[in-house]
Formats: sequence, structure tokens, C-alpha cells
Amino acid sequence: MAYLNENYLKLQAGYLFPEIARRVKEFCDANPGIASRVIRCGIGDVTEPLPPAAVAAMHKAVEELAHRETFRGYGHEQGYDFLRARIAQQDYRDRGIEIADDEIFMSDGSKSDCGFILDILGHQNTIAITDPVYPVYVDTNVMAGHTGAASKDGRYEGIVYLPCRAENGFVPEAPEEHADLVYLCFPNNPTGAVASREQLTRWVEYAHAHNALLLFDAAYEGYISESAIPHSIYEIPGALDCAIEFRSFSKTGGFTGVRCGFTVMPRAVRTQTKDGRSLPLHPLWHRRWSTKANSVSYPVQRGAEALYSVEGRAQVRALIEHYMGNARILRDAATSTGLEVYGGTNAPYIWVKTPPGLTSWEMFDRMLGEIHVVITPGSGFGSCGEGYFRISAFNSRENAEEVGRRMQTFL
Amino acid sequence: MAYLNENYLKLQAGYLFPEIARRVKEFCDANPGIASRVIRCGIGDVTEPLPPAAVAAMHKAVEELAHRETFRGYGHEQGYDFLRARIAQQDYRDRGIEIADDEIFMSDGSKSDCGFILDILGHQNTIAITDPVYPVYVDTNVMAGHTGAASKDGRYEGIVYLPCRAENGFVPEAPEEHADLVYLCFPNNPTGAVASREQLTRWVEYAHAHNALLLFDAAYEGYISESAIPHSIYEIPGALDCAIEFRSFSKTGGFTGVRCGFTVMPRAVRTQTKDGRSLPLHPLWHRRWSTKANSVSYPVQRGAEALYSVEGRAQVRALIEHYMGNARILRDAATSTGLEVYGGTNAPYIWVKTPPGLTSWEMFDRMLGEIHVVITPGSGFGSCGEGYFRISAFNSRENAEEVGRRMQTFL
Repeated sequence: MAYLNENYLKLQAGYLFPEIARRVKEFCDANPGIASRVIRCGIGDVTEPLPPAAVAAMHKAVEELAHRETFRGYGHEQGYDFLRARIAQQDYRDRGIEIADDEIFMSDGSKSDCGFILDILGHQNTIAITDPVYPVYVDTNVMAGHTGAASKDGRYEGIVYLPCRAENGFVPEAPEEHADLVYLCFPNNPTGAVASREQLTRWVEYAHAHNALLLFDAAYEGYISESAIPHSIYEIPGALDCAIEFRSFSKTGGFTGVRCGFTVMPRAVRTQTKDGRSLPLHPLWHRRWSTKANSVSYPVQRGAEALYSVEGRAQVRALIEHYMGNARILRDAATSTGLEVYGGTNAPYIWVKTPPGLTSWEMFDRMLGEIHVVITPGSGFGSCGEGYFRISAFNSRENAEEVGRRMQTFL
Repeated sequence: MAYLNENYLKLQAGYLFPEIARRVKEFCDANPGIASRVIRCGIGDVTEPLPPAAVAAMHKAVEELAHRETFRGYGHEQGYDFLRARIAQQDYRDRGIEIADDEIFMSDGSKSDCGFILDILGHQNTIAITDPVYPVYVDTNVMAGHTGAASKDGRYEGIVYLPCRAENGFVPEAPEEHADLVYLCFPNNPTGAVASREQLTRWVEYAHAHNALLLFDAAYEGYISESAIPHSIYEIPGALDCAIEFRSFSKTGGFTGVRCGFTVMPRAVRTQTKDGRSLPLHPLWHRRWSTKANSVSYPVQRGAEALYSVEGRAQVRALIEHYMGNARILRDAATSTGLEVYGGTNAPYIWVKTPPGLTSWEMFDRMLGEIHVVITPGSGFGSCGEGYFRISAFNSRENAEEVGRRMQTFL
């Protein structure tokens, strides 16, 4: 009988969001009368319509595919030039970062990219991951066999965990010990924390000292409001040879259902073979994409391109301001209840300490049962998330205000 | 320094189609005057516009995303119910095959699926692959470390090759030796061969005798014209517990640039752990999708759904008839030159023996240089493909006719 990948059997319970969906469904089925009053601030999913510039571009692209003269089949394996050129120019070169068009690789989203990147990396690498963390970084390493079994607190043997607590502002310092791969995400999901230029500089120094590779998830960079905070790891001198950056249109262009993101793989990033030869990673990443995929849907790439037009940028800005307006309302509401509140200033997530004696999942169940608000239990993001919960600002203004009011009655 | 996945270093040269593109570009750059006369029958890429039903559905879906009331964010991790239900009903249950909606997993295409499936399988499996073959099956196994180095003829240590030659009608019989995973593709890319019910039955018997798993690529099933030929491996009794099927809308709906396909993962398919426990594979595949992806773009899934409507089916049928009309023209032209010709009856590919003394790549270079027609060298698909070339019928009628005429002058 064929063998399965037994590493999958080490994974714990369901992936966080399906588990939340299951509990919400159970509650709604048991309480049909109030199911319609449930407000979802759990999963970080956008609610507002696509920017009109993206809509127009997608219609136009679909129409091109409807006519022989303008029809397109397979696209370039890294994504269309028209889109990669826009990204490299506007997200990087216009900001003084030397990224070439062919260092951009289009994908159907950061979630995929964060998993796929392990395809080209060796199994010997020591992995460092923040705690709490976006579960995909951990789970994809478990699946790839980079860990041992999970212990009772949910941590896996073999991973170097970097605790993020109120005491360090939820931004970990580089550890004493060695790691080959370090996952960093700023603005952070779930805590909403951002890393300063100085903090990121220390991580780049760590990478150089340890010959480590930083996997930098910048999916929420568009939400940064403070001008001193870096949007890209490449704003830090020396990062171009030790960091891969992931970005997404999910939270900027409202593309969670449209699906588009990209990685930046600088040609200067090098890794080693077990006999110590140093080789660039870019050709492997290119080979991975040309062998395992046919890039992203053409209308989707045109939609993403439109986000870089003058109108598109203004519309993205307005979308982000809408969600950050919600974040202020939710942050203020949580603060006024006397709870400890973090995030929500440079990120669409508010990270809140549970009242004394309540675990994250107890808080989840109580908020669902009593005020019919779905949040995300902090412990779902790692053991250091226990005792916290995440409120997502991705919602209508009306819902954000209603959640704010309900929180007052609850706490 | 972080380690890379050294298995990538075993891969030979470029992936076939980028290498063809490189040679064509080199020729066109050197001969700008005749670049416009080059006709591409190399890569199997569609040329005709999308079916109007898909275009209308995609426009409608884009418009839904433009309005708050109808906006959708993240979809179901396996793909939307509306699409999986159509597929399971019309492709399977209507044909007497018991496939449940939740045994369908949507993806951005078969190329991805053929690689991704290895994520959930163990590294101990012995892999059997036909020769010639779609290179993705081989290369993804090399990348995953399932092979040794390549020998001079391009074959990798550790793979069981199943030769497909004129003598066996390009359909291999099951080998004497044991294999855990067997890749089969019918109608075949590149040879255009189809497997009869009896031949597929012997493969299912082999799977049961060896507890093997069949990975059945049915991307071209829509091109079958002979009524006795099975469209799905599940038409063979007993296949539901030993086969995974891959399908694509690339060649039926002209979706090579739109990107959509699916796998069928029956709940009855079981695999084993190294200590001999037997476990279903379906939960692992589900976990893989919910952790590593967010499914397929919403407008794309609506476009695929429309291919199952009454109009959509008629339009797909017309598209296939168009390409198969080309296949007849190309087949007849090749036959009339006195060459040995295969395929082109139940598949959009014609598989032709090169004239004596010419290798596949020599034939490629001569056809490009002398009659400016791009074909695919058979050796690019494996060592048993040496001495053959593939002509793709994906083209306009005008181009197919012109290629037919040019072949007469050439050979």
C-alpha cells in the first residue's frame, strides 16, 4: 500500500479558522433566532467591495478573453511583465529599493507562498517562529517534516519559538541561539504590532551574523500609519541578500476572494548545499514556479495591476482608511472597558488581554454566546497568545459600531 | 547559511517548454523578417476565445464583487459548493460513478495538482511513470527527493519507467515489479494514445494486487471521440479505492490563462503509515488545501460553473470540434508525407516518427528553420520519445491548414 506523509499526523486539531467556523455554525444552528445577529470579527476577511479600478480592469480582461484577437492562453510563469514591472517600480524602486522586475513572482496569495517557499529549502534548516503567529508558518513546517511531535502546550519539538509578549511590545529580539530561517510578520498578524527600523536592523544583523534567511511577511504593510515604520524589510541596509518578502493584495485591494499576491526573491539571496557550496535561490524559485504552476489568472493580474493606477491607489487608500476607522472604534471600545489593548494603530487587528481568569477560548465562547460577536482566540496563534483575543477591523462601519456598543454591555 | 533543497540540482536543463520558447525567440531575433510567419504547434496552448457562457458568468461574478451586498471574500477551502456539486453530478454521478461533492477539490489547474499531490504522500513510495511523459510528473518527484541522479539518457535512478512505444500502441502494460504510485494519463499527452477499458482494468487489477495508488490524469478526456473509451478511471470497477483523478478546464473551456482544474479524491482511497496502519488520504488532502491555499478566484469558479450549463456544454463541444478538425488536417498532412503518424483521433496531439536519421531536436530545429513551424521534440518527454515529435492541434483553422501545406513542401 502506498505510504502517506506521516508528518501530517503530527498536526493538532483543525486549522484555527475552520474550528472557529465550526463553533459559530454550531451556535447558529442551536440558536436560529439570533443567528442573524452574529457579527464576525474573527477571520481577517474583507467585507467592502473591490476598488472600481480593479473591477473595470477585470471586466476589460474578461472581454479580451472573449475575442480571438485579444485572447491569451498561458501567461509567463512568474506572472505578466505588466504587473511585475508595476510592483517593482512602485512598491520598491520608487522608494529607493533596487528590486528588478524579474525578482517579483506572482502567486494566488501569501498563504500559498509562505508554504511553497519550503519547497526549495533544505530539511536541515533550523526554523525560528514567533509566538503567537499566523498558524500557516508552523503547520507548513510540520507538514514538511521539520519538527518533532507537539507537546501539551501546542509547541513542536525542533522549532525555536520567539515569544512576543506585552513586555517586549510583541516584537521579539533575535535569540542567542542559531536559526537558519526566521519568519517575521510586520505589521503583525495577530498582535497588530509593528517593528521599528532599529528592531528590524537588529534582525538583519542577526541574519548576517548567523547566515540566516529572513522570511518577511509584509501582507499588512498598507496599514502602517506612522511614517517612521518601515514598509519593507528591504528598507534596512543589507537585507537584499538575506530576506525574502511576501506581499498580498488581499487586504489592500480586498482580494481575499480574487486571490493574488507575490514574493520578492532578490538575486542576491544565497543558500548553501550540505557540502558548503553557496548558490543563489532565485533559479530554484523560478524552476519551482515553471514546473509546478502556470501563474495567476489573467483577469486577476489585470485587476491587481489596476491597484497601481492613480485612481486605484486612491481607492485602496480609501478602503484602508475605512477599515482603520473601524479599528479606532473597536480599539476605543475595548479600551474604555478597562481591558489591556494593543495593536489597531498600524494594523487592522486589535489584540486584547482577556479579563482575569478567562482563557482565550472561554472568552471566545462567552463573546459568541452573550454578545454574539465572533473574535479569534489568541491561543489559536500559539501558547503565548493564551489570555488574549484578536478583534478584526474588517467589517462595515455599522457592524464595527455595533460591536463597540455590545462590548460595553458585556464587560 | 540556510540550506537549499539539493534535489533541485538534479533536474536537467530547463523545463521543456521554456527551452522551446528560448529557441523560438533566438530564431525570431536572428530572423526578424520571417518571425511573423512562425506558427506555433509546440506548447499545447489554446488559441480560441472563451466560451460565451463562461465570459458572461465571469462578468457577472466580477460585478458581484463590485457591490457590498453581493461581495464575497474567502471562499470554501475546497472550492465553492456550487461548482463542486456541478462537477460531481455531471462529470460523475450522471455517468453512474458515485462521487460525492466533498470528494472534489478545486485548484488553479492540473499542473499544480500533479505536483501538490506529493505533499501528502510518503517519501518511501516507489514511483512508476510512463516514458514518454508529461515532464511535470517526473520533475516534481525529483524535486521531492524521490529519485537519484539522472543518467545520460535523462532517466532518473529510482523511478520505474514504463516504455510506451509503437509496439504497445503507446499504452504500457503493468510491470512485473512493484510500484506504490503509478502515473497514468489518457488520452495521453504527448502521444495522443487512449487506453481501452480492458487495459485500464488491468491497471486497476495491478493496483489492487500491489496495493498501489493510480494517479490518473484525465485532462484530455473531453477529446475522446470513440464511445468505447473510458473518460474516467472510475468507470473501471474497483477504481474508487485505488485512484485519484486529475481534471482541468484548460483544454475544454480554453482556460489555460483563466486557470482552473480539480482533483477527485474518493474517501475510499487509503494509504499506510510505516508501521502498517491504513488511513484514508482524504483528510490529509483537505488539510493540505485548508493550510496552504485559499482556493480559486471567485470569478474563475463562476466561469468554470458556466461550462456545465446547457449553452456552456454546447460551446465547449464546439471548441473541441474545432481543435479536432485541426487535428484531422494535421494528421492527414503528416500521413500523406509518408511518416508514421499516431494520435490525433481521441486527443489534440499528433505523434509523428521523425524521418530516419533525425533526432527529435534536429527535427525541431529543421522545422523551425525551414518551414517555420514550432513542434515539440519527443525526446523532451523522455528517452522513449526520442525519434518522435508532437504536433499540437491547438490553433486557428487557418494556421492548421497552413502548417499542413508547409509540411508537404518540407518532407
